[in-house]
Amino acid sequence: MATKYKILFQPHNQEIEVEENTTLIRAAMEAQIHINASCGGEGVCGKCRVIIEQGIVEDGISEQLDKEDIDKGIRLACKIKVKDNLSVRIPIESEIDSKILNADFGQRKTAKIKEEDFELLKEEGKFVNPVEKKYLEISPPRTQDNIPDISRLINHLKIECGETKTEPELSVIKEAPDVLRESDFKATVSMIKPVRDERKTKIVKIQPHNTEAENYGIAIDIGTTTVYLQIIDLNNGNVLSQYGDFNGQISYGEDVISRIVIAEKGGLEKLSQVILATVNRLIKKAVKKANISKDNISAVAIAGNTVMTHLLLEINPRYIRRSPYVPAATILPPFKANQIGIDLKEHTTALIYPGVSSYVGGDIIAGVMGAGMYLSEKLTLFIDIGTNAEIVIGNKEWFACAACSAGPAFEGGGIKFGMRAAKGAIENFSVNPATFEPMILTIGDVKPKGICGSGLITIIAEMFLTGIINGRGKFDKNLNQKRIRENNGIYEYVLAWANQTQINKDITVTEIDIENLIRAKGAIYSGAMTLLNEVGLSVSDLDRIIIAGGFGSFIDLERAMTIGLLPEIDAEKVTFIGNGSLLGAKMTLLNNNIRKEVVKVTKMMTNFELSETASYMDNYTAALFLPHTDINLFPKIKKKMAKNIT
Amino acid sequence: MATKYKILFQPHNQEIEVEENTTLIRAAMEAQIHINASCGGEGVCGKCRVIIEQGIVEDGISEQLDKEDIDKGIRLACKIKVKDNLSVRIPIESEIDSKILNADFGQRKTAKIKEEDFELLKEEGKFVNPVEKKYLEISPPRTQDNIPDISRLINHLKIECGETKTEPELSVIKEAPDVLRESDFKATVSMIKPVRDERKTKIVKIQPHNTEAENYGIAIDIGTTTVYLQIIDLNNGNVLSQYGDFNGQISYGEDVISRIVIAEKGGLEKLSQVILATVNRLIKKAVKKANISKDNISAVAIAGNTVMTHLLLEINPRYIRRSPYVPAATILPPFKANQIGIDLKEHTTALIYPGVSSYVGGDIIAGVMGAGMYLSEKLTLFIDIGTNAEIVIGNKEWFACAACSAGPAFEGGGIKFGMRAAKGAIENFSVNPATFEPMILTIGDVKPKGICGSGLITIIAEMFLTGIINGRGKFDKNLNQKRIRENNGIYEYVLAWANQTQINKDITVTEIDIENLIRAKGAIYSGAMTLLNEVGLSVSDLDRIIIAGGFGSFIDLERAMTIGLLPEIDAEKVTFIGNGSLLGAKMTLLNNNIRKEVVKVTKMMTNFELSETASYMDNYTAALFLPHTDINLFPKIKKKMAKNIT
Repeated sequence: MATKYKILFQPHNQEIEVEENTTLIRAAMEAQIHINASCGGEGVCGKCRVIIEQGIVEDGISEQLDKEDIDKGIRLACKIKVKDNLSVRIPIESEIDSKILNADFGQRKTAKIKEEDFELLKEEGKFVNPVEKKYLEISPPRTQDNIPDISRLINHLKIECGETKTEPELSVIKEAPDVLRESDFKATVSMIKPVRDERKTKIVKIQPHNTEAENYGIAIDIGTTTVYLQIIDLNNGNVLSQYGDFNGQISYGEDVISRIVIAEKGGLEKLSQVILATVNRLIKKAVKKANISKDNISAVAIAGNTVMTHLLLEINPRYIRRSPYVPAATILPPFKANQIGIDLKEHTTALIYPGVSSYVGGDIIAGVMGAGMYLSEKLTLFIDIGTNAEIVIGNKEWFACAACSAGPAFEGGGIKFGMRAAKGAIENFSVNPATFEPMILTIGDVKPKGICGSGLITIIAEMFLTGIINGRGKFDKNLNQKRIRENNGIYEYVLAWANQTQINKDITVTEIDIENLIRAKGAIYSGAMTLLNEVGLSVSDLDRIIIAGGFGSFIDLERAMTIGLLPEIDAEKVTFIGNGSLLGAKMTLLNNNIRKEVVKVTKMMTNFELSETASYMDNYTAALFLPHTDINLFPKIKKKMAKNIT
Repeated sequence: MATKYKILFQPHNQEIEVEENTTLIRAAMEAQIHINASCGGEGVCGKCRVIIEQGIVEDGISEQLDKEDIDKGIRLACKIKVKDNLSVRIPIESEIDSKILNADFGQRKTAKIKEEDFELLKEEGKFVNPVEKKYLEISPPRTQDNIPDISRLINHLKIECGETKTEPELSVIKEAPDVLRESDFKATVSMIKPVRDERKTKIVKIQPHNTEAENYGIAIDIGTTTVYLQIIDLNNGNVLSQYGDFNGQISYGEDVISRIVIAEKGGLEKLSQVILATVNRLIKKAVKKANISKDNISAVAIAGNTVMTHLLLEINPRYIRRSPYVPAATILPPFKANQIGIDLKEHTTALIYPGVSSYVGGDIIAGVMGAGMYLSEKLTLFIDIGTNAEIVIGNKEWFACAACSAGPAFEGGGIKFGMRAAKGAIENFSVNPATFEPMILTIGDVKPKGICGSGLITIIAEMFLTGIINGRGKFDKNLNQKRIRENNGIYEYVLAWANQTQINKDITVTEIDIENLIRAKGAIYSGAMTLLNEVGLSVSDLDRIIIAGGFGSFIDLERAMTIGLLPEIDAEKVTFIGNGSLLGAKMTLLNNNIRKEVVKVTKMMTNFELSETASYMDNYTAALFLPHTDINLFPKIKKKMAKNIT
């Protein structure tokens, strides 16, 4: 038997016992301690920095660590094989903190359904829920009328409620006799409504007396990085509680490809358990906060990208990352929530948002539905900005979509001091055009810890407009400013000196960071332009742009246009809908007819594989410039630059 | 903690440990040792005789035991509270033996579908199975055609097979990607076909390559007393194996009412487990014998009376025995076999035969379907003879039904030496009209052990025709025959002297036995006549009589008419179909359209409650005579009697 060692993680004060030679990052995963790791534990990202406080460690050193780090006891968790009892501290920049997700939830420029759209969801003045509750007053059996209880129930539904095709589940057959007699045959049934009238309405629950007023649903957005959910009152659309957290799977790699790799290596069941654990933890909190009974939760609507959906349902995603990139399924039937591992009662239905392809998933379709694109005649460009950006163009008549990989720059990945939009992240920046001295603002107004994606856009836009960097993202080496310096052969700009930071290191933005951001914005811009070209349209044809995504709701529109992330368009034509995926899930809970429409939308949607579209590479190359090699595409920026130069 | 004692049961050589004061009959149940008990352990039937071979027992004595019994160590198991380690022998007459069920299975006048009926089941020359297997050769995905695997499958089914509304189960979504690639996209799907075209066809299984040839179903008849099943090849209707056994619930009481009482007292889950154990044991044997894989068992069709169906599904039957006698449900949706506890794979569907009321269950409806009554224009009287007799009259246009309680006489209950139709049961009898000496034949040609129901009918018919008993069932005390004697004030006829029997006791038929049989036959005859009267018909209007039931297939038609169990009708108009319930279940597996028809039949069926039909009591009283108070209803018997008298 292998020797075992104890690992104590701080500041969590959590201990776990592992076998000799287990890597420390794997020990942390088992202890459910999250450590940033973008590479899935392959030792290349250098993010999983830990401080060894007690115990002997022989490895964990890497070129990503400098001498100073090593002297402080900092090591990379993925490189350490446990050979002693250890006490390990997770330093502040390696931790991820879900508090920020919940603190901001709802305060951003998010997901407000406009009153008129909300009314659109209603039919005959009320919501059409996928699971409807109906109070029935049934005449009790008599000697001359002693048909079975269930036949009596079905007949009543047929004659009194026009429900001609109902079918009870076994649990209802079992409960009905006692429930009906307990309440003098006055009872409430929950019915799953089919999307097509000719199909069966399933009776999934029977409760004594009138419980129509208590009918709840849960909208869930399962992102690669974060999970958000809301408990919705299905009678009036009110949000009763809402929570967000990081997807527990991020310990297993930050992007979908690394998750697929782990799933293929026998980790499928584990990944499914981990995301379910996240979802179930959030449900528990949200149900408690909303102070409702699980007995009255009728439905969950879940939106996620194609890989997240596969992993949630424990479907092997291996063929998604292999040519010709085929998912197992993108249109899924309704399930029982507890059948797929969600900790709700047996009668609760789970509706999974359908997707289109391996890279255009249910999250995007939910966004399209949530943004009301399928109802509108306006020609709309929908962009969900993130590591994987998805782009949809169309209106109620037609849709075209494409996905492009922007890389993790917007979420702080590949950026020397990049971090997620959490407390201490630099989110705003301006620069004195004479002295080139910065002014920085952080989330939570604390000492800076790093730079978040929206902060980086702002920094680069400002540095570009003030001439600190040029269109190729290179520093003006002639400026006499000590903040602009060469460090190991790479030019950088010091945003904050070590003594003013939380991490006691100079926080800088480097030419490599800028290059990464230009690549990311270039990928998204050129993706949108290629898709527009393919359908024979140009920016001037657009009636509006919808920006979705948690990150999207933070960005400053003018600065996004300045760096050429978004095409130049009137600000009033741009809408931020925040978490479109969550919004779409919510809307499905309030209008069941969306389920009929959504399959139409997925079928209308033409998917373009950008990697196989000839013009994409040209468009991409042309976009690797601030704001673009063809400045005439950005006339306002052109004018502003001309002003700055004079 | 309670003291524990060991009980060794012989001849089974099975030991069990129980707590002090456990009743011995309950110990036997736990040890899965069957002891006859008609009263559910209440100590009134006197059937649960056991011999205490070792250990001290202070109780177990009852007025049902005579001194001789007591001296031999015979006690009633239900009256013994365990207070010592015991060795207990189950005497031959208390044991029930399933061997006889299987030995006879198929050799009786059973369940042969006529060739022409068999062909009627086919549509376009082949069977229409409720779960169809379909071999598909799908074109593999390419870069230009990379829709999800499940969409590809569904499209193929739509375009190549005309299956426009298919929906996969989660297990299929999970398995499809690997199965399809394993077999170069040549695979076989199993589809549950809906009864209505507009509903969804569920894809429940996907297998690599062509497995169309292996598609099996199991027909199951769950009777109050016995369970029979057959494994059917769904491609050609062949029976691959078949087994029968006693319903394990008989240890808990012989009739449905005593089972309901136990279910109400907290025994519902146990009763469900016990019948499932019987079914699962039979399935195991039958699958082994048929040498097939459970992977290829697509469906089970189950027929049982309303109480058996409730208990199987663990539905509380309490309101069935309380006025106004309302079952929870008689029409049940399809279930997954493993969802209801049947030990088959997840993809196997369970179809439960619908019934009409508390007392006209799925077994009768299956019989009506199995006998083809729903297809025929012939006016048919269908009688299922048993403890609970069910009577159906009608043809393809209309149906009327009624149930009457005949009591257990036909199965040996309430008969001093009554037993089931097992080895050693007297099944045939004739009497020398001069000497009144008997000739007896037993099942298995061994020394007699008791009298089975069909034997009793024969004995009484013969004794009546020879004048040993009169029309009221009373012995002619003037006959000088030592076999006719008074015993404790009750007249009886000795069929076999003690030294010629297996039980070392005189086997007799008593006036009380005869009275019980007359009541039983009177109930059935008057039930049929009342039902005929209610629909304005008489015996002469009938085109045929169909006799169903395991017991029914043993009876001698002429003798049944002699005692007035059946109305007098031409013998060629009478058909014995044996186990109609099993036959109906089998037919459902071979023609799915029967499922559509069967619901029509249940809805067409008018149920008469005999207890509330005014004329029933008059008819019943008139029938308490051999063959009937109105001998003119039985002209042939009248003629025969006249001949005998002369």
